[in-house]
Amino acid sequence: MTIDEDLEAAAAASVRPGQVHPAVRRARAWLSRVAEPGTIDFWRYVDDVGPVEAVRRLRTGRAPDRLRSIVGVRSGQDESLADLARAERCGARLVIPEDDEWPALPLHALTVAVSSEPDDHTKQSDRTLAPVPPVALWVRGPARLDELVDRSVAIVGSRASTAYGEHVAAELGHALGERGWTVVSGGAFGIDAAAHRGALAAEAPTLAVLACGVDRPYPAAHGALFNRIAETGLLVSEWPPGCAPLRHRFLVRNRLIAALTRGTVVVEAAARSGAQATARRARDLGRQLLVVPGPVTSAMSVGCHELLRDEEAGARLVASAEHVIEAVGGIGTDLARPPERPESPRDGLSDLAGRVLDACPVRSGVSADRLAAVAGCDVLDVLRVLPVLELADLVQWTGTGWRLVPPPKEVRHGAAG
Amino acid sequence: MTIDEDLEAAAAASVRPGQVHPAVRRARAWLSRVAEPGTIDFWRYVDDVGPVEAVRRLRTGRAPDRLRSIVGVRSGQDESLADLARAERCGARLVIPEDDEWPALPLHALTVAVSSEPDDHTKQSDRTLAPVPPVALWVRGPARLDELVDRSVAIVGSRASTAYGEHVAAELGHALGERGWTVVSGGAFGIDAAAHRGALAAEAPTLAVLACGVDRPYPAAHGALFNRIAETGLLVSEWPPGCAPLRHRFLVRNRLIAALTRGTVVVEAAARSGAQATARRARDLGRQLLVVPGPVTSAMSVGCHELLRDEEAGARLVASAEHVIEAVGGIGTDLARPPERPESPRDGLSDLAGRVLDACPVRSGVSADRLAAVAGCDVLDVLRVLPVLELADLVQWTGTGWRLVPPPKEVRHGAAG
Repeated sequence: MTIDEDLEAAAAASVRPGQVHPAVRRARAWLSRVAEPGTIDFWRYVDDVGPVEAVRRLRTGRAPDRLRSIVGVRSGQDESLADLARAERCGARLVIPEDDEWPALPLHALTVAVSSEPDDHTKQSDRTLAPVPPVALWVRGPARLDELVDRSVAIVGSRASTAYGEHVAAELGHALGERGWTVVSGGAFGIDAAAHRGALAAEAPTLAVLACGVDRPYPAAHGALFNRIAETGLLVSEWPPGCAPLRHRFLVRNRLIAALTRGTVVVEAAARSGAQATARRARDLGRQLLVVPGPVTSAMSVGCHELLRDEEAGARLVASAEHVIEAVGGIGTDLARPPERPESPRDGLSDLAGRVLDACPVRSGVSADRLAAVAGCDVLDVLRVLPVLELADLVQWTGTGWRLVPPPKEVRHGAAG
Repeated sequence: MTIDEDLEAAAAASVRPGQVHPAVRRARAWLSRVAEPGTIDFWRYVDDVGPVEAVRRLRTGRAPDRLRSIVGVRSGQDESLADLARAERCGARLVIPEDDEWPALPLHALTVAVSSEPDDHTKQSDRTLAPVPPVALWVRGPARLDELVDRSVAIVGSRASTAYGEHVAAELGHALGERGWTVVSGGAFGIDAAAHRGALAAEAPTLAVLACGVDRPYPAAHGALFNRIAETGLLVSEWPPGCAPLRHRFLVRNRLIAALTRGTVVVEAAARSGAQATARRARDLGRQLLVVPGPVTSAMSVGCHELLRDEEAGARLVASAEHVIEAVGGIGTDLARPPERPESPRDGLSDLAGRVLDACPVRSGVSADRLAAVAGCDVLDVLRVLPVLELADLVQWTGTGWRLVPPPKEVRHGAAG
């Protein structure tokens, strides 16, 4: 059956509530190929007249000029059945807004954002930056898309990462995976791959949003990684099977990584890099923007530090998975513990007791008078705190004077800086 | 002459305006030994009745009980002449608030802060944290104290520093010194020493605020470093010559490092460390609190990251001397340049031109129709941007179609993350 006959039948058919007519999926498959994702007017038209009607009008030349200009010669082509078959062969399927599985809640941020774009397309955001929901998502893997992204965090960063960045990304991916959070990334070299691998090492499903067909490993060296991701998690793409990873598609894709997750963690980013742009998109969509610092001597952390220095970016420094979860988790739950300081017998001593303790010599004992002079306080005060220090096993009476109990291995002077 | 006779004469003498009677300096020398710095009521009393009168009343038992309790048996002792002589022997002198050289402006922050301390001394801040101006400063070195601290920055951090932290502190010290800023620190092992050494390497005077006498190198291994500092810069201490570096003195000393400078840079700090406390004091005195991040895998950067995560701390991330100078320098001058990104011929291309460029194959040329289909745009648009791309030497006409001009050494796909 041609797509036109199929849609004709669909338009006439009555569908039970909660059921999706197969022709709707075919229509969205067709739509996902004839226009590049991120095109505001195209999405608006489909949203307005519905996918079946949109295809019918575009196929018969009844759509507005602007829409016909967007689709061009592709309105006469039809690869929808071939694309759906090709997806099935690699274990993928097309998830559409009419499905229960559609991640409607996370993507709602895009629907809201796109509503403030102007009508005049010459004044709209550049397509690589436009906040437009996808018309459909090709997904490969066993997980349910909406469930997988419900508690998810994006980990993004440079492809030209350092060993430090990869270590941190893998540790974060592992720790987040262990705690039931889905790690979302772009499947690229460097930080992306390290984050996915960290999650997989924790046997947690992870999600890669690709800028090419889900049957087409890009980069090619990540074929095995993508197969592992697709065993428990998901590969997701707006582009039909077979589509190539063109440069501009990565930029368009990035809005999905930001929208699908509760927050984006930038692990390493060079100066004025794409990762910074992705991070700002997350912030613009109301998502948490979290940034891992690094050595100031590392070029791959310059972008991270710029984000943290930019007050308008609203970025928060994170140094651990606990920090990330505190930021993206429920309010009041999962508060990160403050870092622990090694306990010292001095902890809890009053200022006065501390001063008297400092005044005590290591070897031969001295009188309380001498302690008072060195500590800069009254003799009565010294006599008052000496029993406290003695009970804490910090000072001892030698028979002729007071001295320190030799500490096991501690340096005595200190507390500088 | 005993101090009592000396002061008697001073009280009776008339002094020309702008001149300081030698007995005033002797009185402050005496005061600097009989009470530990940081004692609020002691400083208030001296400020109230004047140094000469304060000494006379303390020596003759006419001071209030609280003051007599602070000074204790030391009211009967007098090492003032010996201390001044000892200072002179090591090339030091006593700078007092009556001198032109006194850094009145920076220390004014302490005068303001101490005025909000309660009268009841049991309710006042702990002496190690109290914001009290010094009664006098022992300084060793050729520089004028007020001039040296006019444009100064503190660099503080852990004694147990890493190679990374020392490298960064030395680089900051060097770069700030080169740009005419005085590096102030505490002369301790680790970050302090690296910062001083960086400044010295730039042949810039640097200032060490010590917690012991300026004639007494502590740590002992820093004797040579202190001698170098004292050749062009200054060693400064509230304690008279010969005084020992007791633990609590470091904490009391830290308020001076914060007050004398326009901002404090924390380079490395362990969790809940002294450096964090110093940093917060700087903030409390209205100074810039600047923090250098580090690897999240380093225990010595945990304290830095905690400061940066603590919104109430008001800390600002700095990664270079330019960032520091931007924060402490004059408003509108010395703005740090944004980091540079390597230039690419793609820079400045429109979204459309970028998409057409991406659609061009590397080897055999293709038609404008084909480019339009891959780039997702009109053929007319493609024909419009192709001349632009050709002029920019990005695409070429093979005779049968359009293809990319092979780039010298660039990877073609990209822009992920």
